[in-house]
Amino acid sequence: MRVHNFSAGPAALPESVINEVREELPVYRDAGASVMEISHRSPQYTAIAESARTRMRSLLGIGDDWHVLFLHGGASTQFYQVPLNFLPEGATADYVDTGAWSAKAIKEARSVGNVNLAASSKEGNYTFIPSRGDWDVTPGAAYLHFTSNNTIHGTEYHVDPQVEAPLVCDASSDFLSRPIDMAGYGLIYAGAQKNLGPAGVTVVLVHDSFLAKRKDGVPTILDYRTHAEKLFHTPTVFAVYVVEKVLAWIEANGGLTGMAALNREKGALLYNRLDRTDFYRGTARPDSRSLMNVTFRLPSEDLEAEFVREAAKAGLAGLKGHRSVGGIRASTYNAVGMDSVSALVAFMDDFEARRG
Amino acid sequence: MRVHNFSAGPAALPESVINEVREELPVYRDAGASVMEISHRSPQYTAIAESARTRMRSLLGIGDDWHVLFLHGGASTQFYQVPLNFLPEGATADYVDTGAWSAKAIKEARSVGNVNLAASSKEGNYTFIPSRGDWDVTPGAAYLHFTSNNTIHGTEYHVDPQVEAPLVCDASSDFLSRPIDMAGYGLIYAGAQKNLGPAGVTVVLVHDSFLAKRKDGVPTILDYRTHAEKLFHTPTVFAVYVVEKVLAWIEANGGLTGMAALNREKGALLYNRLDRTDFYRGTARPDSRSLMNVTFRLPSEDLEAEFVREAAKAGLAGLKGHRSVGGIRASTYNAVGMDSVSALVAFMDDFEARRG
Repeated sequence: MRVHNFSAGPAALPESVINEVREELPVYRDAGASVMEISHRSPQYTAIAESARTRMRSLLGIGDDWHVLFLHGGASTQFYQVPLNFLPEGATADYVDTGAWSAKAIKEARSVGNVNLAASSKEGNYTFIPSRGDWDVTPGAAYLHFTSNNTIHGTEYHVDPQVEAPLVCDASSDFLSRPIDMAGYGLIYAGAQKNLGPAGVTVVLVHDSFLAKRKDGVPTILDYRTHAEKLFHTPTVFAVYVVEKVLAWIEANGGLTGMAALNREKGALLYNRLDRTDFYRGTARPDSRSLMNVTFRLPSEDLEAEFVREAAKAGLAGLKGHRSVGGIRASTYNAVGMDSVSALVAFMDDFEARRG
Repeated sequence: MRVHNFSAGPAALPESVINEVREELPVYRDAGASVMEISHRSPQYTAIAESARTRMRSLLGIGDDWHVLFLHGGASTQFYQVPLNFLPEGATADYVDTGAWSAKAIKEARSVGNVNLAASSKEGNYTFIPSRGDWDVTPGAAYLHFTSNNTIHGTEYHVDPQVEAPLVCDASSDFLSRPIDMAGYGLIYAGAQKNLGPAGVTVVLVHDSFLAKRKDGVPTILDYRTHAEKLFHTPTVFAVYVVEKVLAWIEANGGLTGMAALNREKGALLYNRLDRTDFYRGTARPDSRSLMNVTFRLPSEDLEAEFVREAAKAGLAGLKGHRSVGGIRASTYNAVGMDSVSALVAFMDDFEARRG
């Protein structure tokens, strides 16, 4: 039996996608083998990757001036790879610190070059996104890096930041959950394991004009140009194959506006439930609340542990908050349906009635 | 229908493994979700990774002094990561050049530090492994790097090299195809997509005493210590899951001595067929022939194209040689059975009878 899956990542995928994967085992279409067993230069995989790129561009409304790369290494590799390519000596990159993952990106960038902390909500325990008006940006910055959604702290940007420098965004946890105005961006990266597919592939979108600014002398494997020019080495074939199916599922469910509407509806249901009584307390400032990770506390840690335990027994999985902050976290990525959120709200009502 | 799969990689996996994967969709055991949808810190994934490490150590007869890492990035990342960690300023690393992949490893190492080309078969079109007696090794070298099997050229080391320096080996294409004497090694890496599992995970074995020698100041994600100490970031969960099943399959089929016996038997059948007449000509020098990639030519390129085309129609897939060298390549990794090799030999007989 499949549970209601609120895992923060790797996370729920559409059940129809999982079933398609099953149906295409042990043989993928005309390949005579599973998709795990065919060359990354085979016509079958070439078609899969090309379809994934086409769907991605279509969903985001972008053209061939955007390179769509499927890389290894996760966001943690991007933390280093971005400044290695785009933060030359003498230049400054602006970073906004809104949580643990932002802080890691900043740490790696500082090992490469000059970083200006444009804004931070660290002093406020990362419970909000600093207002754009309070940002201290650098004139002529190489780029401005931000984390569009903060999985641990349950906060999310609700508008694309407006700055002069090209935006670089770690969108790992809300990518394709809503439309993006790509005009201000130079590069967006997202580990697949939240809204896109299985762990092991990182989607990187890089605009041609931004790519042209990369530094010389970057090691081959870490140079974005290497991957923009050709299929340099073996990609994570299976993960890209699943990503292509997830993109098709997004298309079939209203595209990014469809995802945004669904996610708003789920968020409204859950946050309204949180706000209805004092038993549950949302941890993020209301204007910064994430539609991907809904974080909240109960009156005591004992009650929180009991909540997680009982929820699991009731078929609601993955609700324990990140170990660094505690509490409860319900991750409601694209593939988590209204049925799951409704089941969670019903459980919350019941739990409060019994223990509140 | 599943074909006889001679793909050079990603390559054939045991059919029983593929069927188990199918059976564990859409729900993995007690997880309530597929293995793609559960946290990399869940008890289920933790058990999978731990079992994979235990099986790996058991197959190789090694203990806890060896770190078993499941990394992202493929061998192409290791080409850079190895010297970045282990080739300090003022030191020299020895490299043996036996093919296109060795050459790439050498190129990346030269971008980091001082490289001595200990031996090369480039002048002989990479048709052989240079004899140990002809190697020009550096006293006190940081390490000696070699490529144990050369997929493009069809050559393979048949003994573990004996040198004073710790061995570093790109074993991507023959790892776990036979026992290894691990005593001389400091680090072994292997992209999974030949003998181990799907593309997207790279197995790195690093000995504790070698790891202790790594340089300071290596970026977090590229520092082997980062991954030896803890699960630093999200691994390629699905690929590790399949690798664990492949390791269990190797155990159930006689371990590494069982694999070696099977691979010798397959190689004997195929190479004996090659040598029987002049119609097929093996490209590797007999003492250096690979048991993983059997490369050969026919009297003309037209006949080679016809051979590949007709073989595909007869259910023998992936026989086209690498685009850089042409000809025919039959990749016969662990999971390619005697039935497949026998079918290929029968086809070769038939093709020669008709076109020879």
